[in-house]
Amino acid sequence: MSTPLRLGIAGLGTVGIGVVKIVQQHAAMITARTGREVVITAVSARSRTKNRDADLSGYAWEDDPLALATRGDVDIFVELMGGSDGPALDATRAAIAAGKDVVTANKAMLAIHGQDLAETAEAAGHVIRFEAAVAGGIPVVKVLTEGLAGNRIKRVMGVMNGTCNYILTRMESSGLPYGDVFDEAAQLGYLEADPNLDVGGIDAGHKLALLASVAFGTRVSFDAVELEGIQRISIEDIRQAADMGFKIKLLGVAQMTGRGLEQRMSPCLVPDDSPLGQLQGGTNMVVLEGDSVGQIVLRGAGAGMGPTASAVMSDVMDIARGIRVSTFGQPATTLVAAVSAKANAPAPFYLRMQLLDKPGALAKIATALGDAGISIDRMRQYGHENSSAPVLIVTHKTTRDALDHALAGCATTGVLTGDPVAIRIEAV
Amino acid sequence: MSTPLRLGIAGLGTVGIGVVKIVQQHAAMITARTGREVVITAVSARSRTKNRDADLSGYAWEDDPLALATRGDVDIFVELMGGSDGPALDATRAAIAAGKDVVTANKAMLAIHGQDLAETAEAAGHVIRFEAAVAGGIPVVKVLTEGLAGNRIKRVMGVMNGTCNYILTRMESSGLPYGDVFDEAAQLGYLEADPNLDVGGIDAGHKLALLASVAFGTRVSFDAVELEGIQRISIEDIRQAADMGFKIKLLGVAQMTGRGLEQRMSPCLVPDDSPLGQLQGGTNMVVLEGDSVGQIVLRGAGAGMGPTASAVMSDVMDIARGIRVSTFGQPATTLVAAVSAKANAPAPFYLRMQLLDKPGALAKIATALGDAGISIDRMRQYGHENSSAPVLIVTHKTTRDALDHALAGCATTGVLTGDPVAIRIEAV
Repeated sequence: MSTPLRLGIAGLGTVGIGVVKIVQQHAAMITARTGREVVITAVSARSRTKNRDADLSGYAWEDDPLALATRGDVDIFVELMGGSDGPALDATRAAIAAGKDVVTANKAMLAIHGQDLAETAEAAGHVIRFEAAVAGGIPVVKVLTEGLAGNRIKRVMGVMNGTCNYILTRMESSGLPYGDVFDEAAQLGYLEADPNLDVGGIDAGHKLALLASVAFGTRVSFDAVELEGIQRISIEDIRQAADMGFKIKLLGVAQMTGRGLEQRMSPCLVPDDSPLGQLQGGTNMVVLEGDSVGQIVLRGAGAGMGPTASAVMSDVMDIARGIRVSTFGQPATTLVAAVSAKANAPAPFYLRMQLLDKPGALAKIATALGDAGISIDRMRQYGHENSSAPVLIVTHKTTRDALDHALAGCATTGVLTGDPVAIRIEAV
Repeated sequence: MSTPLRLGIAGLGTVGIGVVKIVQQHAAMITARTGREVVITAVSARSRTKNRDADLSGYAWEDDPLALATRGDVDIFVELMGGSDGPALDATRAAIAAGKDVVTANKAMLAIHGQDLAETAEAAGHVIRFEAAVAGGIPVVKVLTEGLAGNRIKRVMGVMNGTCNYILTRMESSGLPYGDVFDEAAQLGYLEADPNLDVGGIDAGHKLALLASVAFGTRVSFDAVELEGIQRISIEDIRQAADMGFKIKLLGVAQMTGRGLEQRMSPCLVPDDSPLGQLQGGTNMVVLEGDSVGQIVLRGAGAGMGPTASAVMSDVMDIARGIRVSTFGQPATTLVAAVSAKANAPAPFYLRMQLLDKPGALAKIATALGDAGISIDRMRQYGHENSSAPVLIVTHKTTRDALDHALAGCATTGVLTGDPVAIRIEAV
């Protein structure tokens, strides 16, 4: 038997304590599976005195994560502090410089600095692993990099922010507007300190950028992710979509097209009887499409102590077993800088407009759409509310560019009141 | 760069040709991802002259798989012949003796000889990998052994025979009886040469036995799998189950209980709005439950050229990357011989009985069930057909033992005509 593999854990929030518990409770199982003892030698967090529901007395304490990262008795620096920059980044850099492997749950840091960190680590023969950064307990990074390694990946999709999915499904089940459900989620502690990370799609966008890199062999390019949050999703749209057999999800889609790599994280309609459509609450789902395997769907808890710690331990135990796959599935220096393409793959769209109570209003809209080459699959007009009437349209497949052009045409008709709502219907 | 990794492929059916195509079409991608060139040096099959829609001219041909398995220019013996014994087993043994790693899709061989083969290979420092043997393109072996390595697994479930799922979903959609749909499936080429491997649950039982070993660290014990096929599922039961909100699936369940390891492959009712309930046609689904991660659901194609070849390539590329996880997730010599327990975990049951048209018949059945301690959740009686009436019962949770006792009591009432149907309702 080899020497023990020694972990230094920086960050003792929910996930950090979850990792401590697994290492303590399953020591024999871990050794049986990996052939190597896995031990914690040192930990670090902001407050030493906080009650953490775990016995940390056997571990050295470091107030400074940098000191932890460079300790001589640490083989893997387990970074669970979070934040794209600051102490997490400094300590990770220090750990790599000190010859450690790194396991992290930090999607923000890797989405911004992943290329640089991976190149530095790999040049020194060390690995950075990040299973816990994407989709919680779902081992999607491993499935993509190893399980589907023989596939040219065509598309990666996912619902990867449990808070947004909670808000959207709760809006539908309760009939409450966005603001009320947002407040509920805040009270339940579901939101990040900066809620825009959740509802603005940034957190999910970080995850998508990481998956796209792994899927397509490209450098992480978070800046190229087209981000649209759920803040403007109205209860009307959720209701109307449901009436027509759809659910609204904050859906990430990355696909390689002839024009380049499309990455978008945005509200989309999906059929309510599809696996994505049926996803409730905080559960995550990732859909992977490969040229040989076809479609693989993975579903599981996207956050929480146990699921996220499970993902951290998967990376730790891989290293204990001697598995040293490159951070993004191939050496970082071989990743190519993808040409980013505007998300413009053809799709049907859901449109909701408010028409003034004028003769021929609907005809003018239909004409404006037709003039722009957009054909209508389904349309519903409702009774007038005060002086205007809601109209719902599902278009045939069109591009976002053509749609924007058509909506500009609709705006010039003078029969619209308010801005039209347009949401992509994703084929899943 | 290392020397090329050289494959010898025995068996050039659908899957073998699928592997050839991936190696030929994605050579550069494979090298980029693994850091090593993967080449085919030799192939073997029963007929050399058969038209196979792939260019094999660059490979040495061996009529005898044993000769292929022991060639000096082969590093991995890729066994895609099938069959638990005979040439596949002989050649695999020869390959291990000759110092090769083995990648196989042969569930039958591993379910019977896996322990012996893995011990021999591991003693010599070689690996046997079998991702393609279970659930086709779904990388479930990797997810269990590596992705969820930090979990104590509690239960593994799955729909893992696409042919059975096709027959059951087709019976429901068409309203046709089992025999008609079986004949359809035969004509479509969906059935094994010995159809009992499919509809008798044997093929799926092999897969379950392999997953149970990986999940629980136990020796493969196919003999302990309680097998029940789908041959006795009637269109009436499919209809009645649907009316009550259930689907009938051939479901494998392995779980570690206080009494020992339960393994059963049998028709079960599952809620029609659950992921398992919604599974259509040939798609497979595996549900994994771990103490930290909670429930992970994996869905994908369970068979076919592309998906199965994708799984074979996952194993091949792992070896190219230097990943050498033990066959069953930990060294074969450390696997324990599980105590097998009769599948008796409490569950609700669906019962269908035919009652004679006699006064008090229903009361007698209700009394017999009650006397045996079985309480009734829902019951439906239908109008009389000739001289008897169908009765449907959903019980509260009970054990199979208690149910069998109760059914024996029902038999003595003299009001039953024909044998009652009893199908477990699995909580999913």
